[in-house]
Amino acid sequence: MQLLTNASLATMDAESGGYGLIARGVVAMADGRIHWAGPEADLPAEYAGVPRHDLEGRLVTPGLIDCHTHIVFGGDRAREFEMRLEGASYEEIARAGGGIVSSVAATRAADEAALLASAQARADHLLAEGVTTLEIKSGYGLDIATEIKMLRVARLIGETRPVHVLTTWLAAHALPAEYAGDRAGYIRDVVIGGLDAAHAEGLVDAVDGFCEGIAFSRDEMAAIFDHAAGLGLPVKLHAEQLSDLHGAAMAAAHGAISADHLEYLGADGIDAMAASGTVAVLLPGAFYTLRETQLPPVQALRDAGVPIALATDCNPGTSPLTSILLTMNMGATLFRLTPAECLAGVTRNAARALGLADRGAIAPGLRADLAIWDVKHPAELIYRIGFNPLHARIVGGEFV
Amino acid sequence: MQLLTNASLATMDAESGGYGLIARGVVAMADGRIHWAGPEADLPAEYAGVPRHDLEGRLVTPGLIDCHTHIVFGGDRAREFEMRLEGASYEEIARAGGGIVSSVAATRAADEAALLASAQARADHLLAEGVTTLEIKSGYGLDIATEIKMLRVARLIGETRPVHVLTTWLAAHALPAEYAGDRAGYIRDVVIGGLDAAHAEGLVDAVDGFCEGIAFSRDEMAAIFDHAAGLGLPVKLHAEQLSDLHGAAMAAAHGAISADHLEYLGADGIDAMAASGTVAVLLPGAFYTLRETQLPPVQALRDAGVPIALATDCNPGTSPLTSILLTMNMGATLFRLTPAECLAGVTRNAARALGLADRGAIAPGLRADLAIWDVKHPAELIYRIGFNPLHARIVGGEFV
Ligand SMILES: [Zn+2]
Ligand SMILES: [Zn+2]
Repeated sequence: MQLLTNASLATMDAESGGYGLIARGVVAMADGRIHWAGPEADLPAEYAGVPRHDLEGRLVTPGLIDCHTHIVFGGDRAREFEMRLEGASYEEIARAGGGIVSSVAATRAADEAALLASAQARADHLLAEGVTTLEIKSGYGLDIATEIKMLRVARLIGETRPVHVLTTWLAAHALPAEYAGDRAGYIRDVVIGGLDAAHAEGLVDAVDGFCEGIAFSRDEMAAIFDHAAGLGLPVKLHAEQLSDLHGAAMAAAHGAISADHLEYLGADGIDAMAASGTVAVLLPGAFYTLRETQLPPVQALRDAGVPIALATDCNPGTSPLTSILLTMNMGATLFRLTPAECLAGVTRNAARALGLADRGAIAPGLRADLAIWDVKHPAELIYRIGFNPLHARIVGGEFV
Repeated sequence: MQLLTNASLATMDAESGGYGLIARGVVAMADGRIHWAGPEADLPAEYAGVPRHDLEGRLVTPGLIDCHTHIVFGGDRAREFEMRLEGASYEEIARAGGGIVSSVAATRAADEAALLASAQARADHLLAEGVTTLEIKSGYGLDIATEIKMLRVARLIGETRPVHVLTTWLAAHALPAEYAGDRAGYIRDVVIGGLDAAHAEGLVDAVDGFCEGIAFSRDEMAAIFDHAAGLGLPVKLHAEQLSDLHGAAMAAAHGAISADHLEYLGADGIDAMAASGTVAVLLPGAFYTLRETQLPPVQALRDAGVPIALATDCNPGTSPLTSILLTMNMGATLFRLTPAECLAGVTRNAARALGLADRGAIAPGLRADLAIWDVKHPAELIYRIGFNPLHARIVGGEFV
């Protein structure tokens, strides 16, 4: 048992609706869990003799959760980024080997050690900003062996770094060239066949897909989700990023834990998500990188009571972003979320987007995953741009 | 004398027009200056016995230069940021003490030690990303004593941190309440009277102003620039940020070293800047924070041969940004500068925006201010978002 004392707590308690601030607070931790949290004045007598760690007035938040990333991939798309800014056409970039196919080729070619090293470097940036839980998707293999290799690497990140990793099967990310003209074959052989194999290895915590004109249709995704349900796996969907295919409503009908992106989400999708309790995961890094102008329907999501999460969407093509703090600033600046909504988006609601009920707030019984910050008020974490005031992380009750 | 070997050099040589890349390069440094730089194969025999520092293939760029900042100020505007996102009106924010007047009040109230500590923390973020030269403006005092206090603190940053600081007199930032209705009196007493006093103390490297409907007119700024010329001080101007007052053309006619912001710059201003050699300093952090949609005329600036620099504009109201790397990414993503233009914007052209001919490139005779990076190609520095691959800085020939 240990006490964190002299702390300002942003408990992110759901009932507070906001930060759930406790000005002069104490957290009692034991066996990796939070035993008690509240104002120092209310500390029960039973904690009187427990060792204390004085936080000197620092802010404590739940450990941050990045609930949507693609941080395992091979290769580098910096040169493609440069060519585009130098005026190269899409044909020229494709001829030079650019686009998602370049990430797929490099990911297939890389061995586990190389994929792990590059993904660890990305994860380390996130951990340095207070992340304690991290979702990682497959989706740059598009064949069974490489998709499984990606999720093995994702699991290895959780074993080699002090962070909890959740893995997501995203073979339905794009159709690879070898299946051109045979969409059904790809879905049958690789998306579903590979899912069975990966699940048998214990590598899959959830199933995702990219529902878009350039990727997979609503009906194709529905069949994949039916299969996931048969395996007892939760589902989530990249939906309504570039157009409204009504993917979010389909996902909600399948009980999806989240629908992600959502710039083009309409009223039908919002109503369905509200009814099913599906979390809206907004990804401002991709919105920013693509210079998107269609804003996600934030006010309508609020009005409908849909929980809103935020994530980096870290990926080599449309969001090469490894800052969860900047993600919050973008959520406020670009999407007009309040700072309290931004912080809930990477704590309480991000946990829910991963189907996790044991974290995302500072409350008795939850995991003792915490971030300690050299700021006075949580709004500073969202207001400032390009800085990192993290003092320390606590994972499972231990300073790491 | 010391050699940096096994390095990839982005010399930012002006004649290259781009990065001036040297794949397997060597830099020879002595007495704080660069003696020689070039391909290892061409290393003159005279350097044969000189001690070598093997950089293991890392990238070396000139030390980065943040040529437009307001990092010395008191107080905190995070709560104002939050109120605005929570829907507060400008009246409500003003009643709660928000806006620039809150920064002025807090800066007047703070002592030098407090101002120094908070500004050092901001400077440290910039230094951690490879900045070796930093411009700092006054402008939150709006009375002589506080404006001078700000520039003393700016000088102290250069004395307490391994970075070169250039100071800029920006009393013409806003009209303080006590001079409401007496603009001429403020300019005479504080802007010009204070400039004389600060200059006598050796605190002023350049003179700046905010030329805008809500601040000072073109004619008011011209009179201040005439006075600066009498003192032998270079001038620069916040111009055409919110509207086209033709401030940049006036500044260029006064031989300004830079005109900054420039979203609303017209053809007259571009022609005048090209003729006078005035640098266009673009500030994407303010553009982003204000959700501005009017883009600066980048292609017209290129066509006219106006050098383009980039800077953080770090300030508490419109750009609470302390990342020069993110500034480059924003320059590319939001303003469509090429990565090579972005890097030139924080090296070669940023030096010129400060009137400095002794830095901003890797070339014999220039200061040995360098940044060493754990990347293979300079485009990676601009492409990635929210990361920091700095390996080390060299200031005046010394690793710091
Ligand atoms: Zn994604
Ligand atoms: Zn400024």
